[in-house]
Amino acid sequence: NRELKIFSGNANLALAHEISAYLGQKLGEATVASFSDGEIRVKIEENVRGADVFVVQSCCQPVNDSLMELLIIIDALKRSSANRITAVIPYFGYARQDRKDQPRVPITAKLVADLITTAGADRVLTMDLHAGQIQGFFNVPVDHLYALPVLLDYITKKKIADLVVVSPDAGGVERARAFAKRLQANLAIIDKRREGPNQAQIMNIIGDVQGKNALLLDDMIDTAGTIVQGAQACADQGAREVWTACTHAVLSGPALDRLQRSCISQVVVTNTIPLRGKEQVCPKLHALSVAPLLGEAIRRIHEDESVSSLFA
Amino acid sequence: NRELKIFSGNANLALAHEISAYLGQKLGEATVASFSDGEIRVKIEENVRGADVFVVQSCCQPVNDSLMELLIIIDALKRSSANRITAVIPYFGYARQDRKDQPRVPITAKLVADLITTAGADRVLTMDLHAGQIQGFFNVPVDHLYALPVLLDYITKKKIADLVVVSPDAGGVERARAFAKRLQANLAIIDKRREGPNQAQIMNIIGDVQGKNALLLDDMIDTAGTIVQGAQACADQGAREVWTACTHAVLSGPALDRLQRSCISQVVVTNTIPLRGKEQVCPKLHALSVAPLLGEAIRRIHEDESVSSLFA
Ligand SMILES: Nc1ncnc2c1ncn2[C@@H]1O[C@H](COP(=O)(O)O)[C@@H](O)[C@H]1O
Ligand SMILES: Nc1ncnc2c1ncn2[C@@H]1O[C@H](COP(=O)(O)O)[C@@H](O)[C@H]1O
Repeated sequence: NRELKIFSGNANLALAHEISAYLGQKLGEATVASFSDGEIRVKIEENVRGADVFVVQSCCQPVNDSLMELLIIIDALKRSSANRITAVIPYFGYARQDRKDQPRVPITAKLVADLITTAGADRVLTMDLHAGQIQGFFNVPVDHLYALPVLLDYITKKKIADLVVVSPDAGGVERARAFAKRLQANLAIIDKRREGPNQAQIMNIIGDVQGKNALLLDDMIDTAGTIVQGAQACADQGAREVWTACTHAVLSGPALDRLQRSCISQVVVTNTIPLRGKEQVCPKLHALSVAPLLGEAIRRIHEDESVSSLFA
Repeated sequence: NRELKIFSGNANLALAHEISAYLGQKLGEATVASFSDGEIRVKIEENVRGADVFVVQSCCQPVNDSLMELLIIIDALKRSSANRITAVIPYFGYARQDRKDQPRVPITAKLVADLITTAGADRVLTMDLHAGQIQGFFNVPVDHLYALPVLLDYITKKKIADLVVVSPDAGGVERARAFAKRLQANLAIIDKRREGPNQAQIMNIIGDVQGKNALLLDDMIDTAGTIVQGAQACADQGAREVWTACTHAVLSGPALDRLQRSCISQVVVTNTIPLRGKEQVCPKLHALSVAPLLGEAIRRIHEDESVSSLFA
């Protein structure tokens, strides 16, 4: 049988170690460092000939360095005769640039998909893609996991009464609906409208949040503008307490400050992107681990078992 | 006739402007910026449909950001129906990782070549590749220019008496030989040897530098270790004055300090990589412009003329 090996770049070493621990093994030894001029230096420090190799690397900040690390590690593994290389990308960066929403812009998510297979990835394992369509940007098999079970488990244990799941925009309704269904909670949707040019945006909540505990759900928090505005709209409409749950904690620019000053009680995220001490600046942050989910998916891919039941 | 357009990333805007000026036109308008989370944001701000487009971008520090900018700009141009896209890469980064010199390392120069064509480049124009073999990593036409005429012109005008051209290592002999021939100067080679393990390296100069003005020639200066050691060896062997000429001014880590404290009189480089004020810290630096050379090559490629006479 082909041996299972896990390697990691520097984007999320803690998660890679957790995944390895779940699988009862040690992380593969590799040097992933930089030369003096910033060029990435990679050396695989153990034999991988014929092995079934998984490379764990989120495309998180610094995003271009993380992506290049992933590509160069894959190149090194390929040239070291690994039997199969799976790129495990818990957070898939550049996912928001997934269509031409104006003339003469790139479709960087498709470019990134092409770069990953060009480097030599035979398959991809990822989580909560910003748009499911990104799976189709690849011509290799993609296993797409949802953090939903992990978030759901945490929220269920909190036993929050009178819960209503809120989608912060029209784009997130399907995700929120799936969540609400599992929690047997109601659904609400925030509809942002501008009545005319130069008029302030109006937050209209479709559904009832009055006297309820609102849980705002999204795939990622970046600058936290949308989620904080949405939370305020819920509070204005009489919500009792406002919670948020988002898979990917991008948290750039003013995010921590905005979240901390907002009416949100708790910001539940996962560890697809490492917090690196951000929870000290913003104690509302609470990260759940997706390591068991990713570890189990890796085990099943390695054993040629179906991964789809992990979505149940 | 297809229109000629020049675009640029942020790696070397000054050079791109100079090239455009040589060609008597303005640089194409494009936004190349970043989102809050560091992802690169590109928009081509003018029509390029059917145009013959050249993208000027050196793969210099921050190298991964520069490379990703190049790839994303190419993707945007391709999706904007440019007729042909030429990647103009005055400094080709990751060129030193061009072979497996130990087990289980990547060949990143080949990976980078693949990334550039995957993004959509139809051809490549570059200068003084660390190894000429890198041309073969591409399956599209590569025009490979030498900065030699620019360096030669400067050195000739200096009318340095009793000049001997010195190669800092065995790998650079061909380059130094071509230079010496044009200058009708003698050639010397530095041969570094370690007599045994844990013994200091001995610098042996093959050829005569005694009482001569030595010109050390290399394709790039990175940390400046090699060139400063070589310069000292020349001085120790009785060279009168020591000069250096190198195409690519990578200048990372201790480079500026080492050069400034060395016995080298002047460090002649080109602007394939921008100095960005380094000449203030190290006034020995003197940058020559390769813009006319690149501009002329672009004009000829656009006119379907031969570029090879630029090597004469
Ligand atoms: N890293 C980023 N940060 C902020 N906005 C982005 C980023 N990448 C892409 N976008 C923009 O986000 C929009 C798509 O987001 P969405 O409608 O949520 O899918 C597009 O207009 C993109 O230009
Ligand atoms: N950016 C870099 N900085 C320093 N050394 C490098 C860099 N990239 C590759 N190398 C190493 O340089 C050696 C090749 O240099 P050379 O013999 O001059 O072609 C190899 O051992 C590489 O691992």
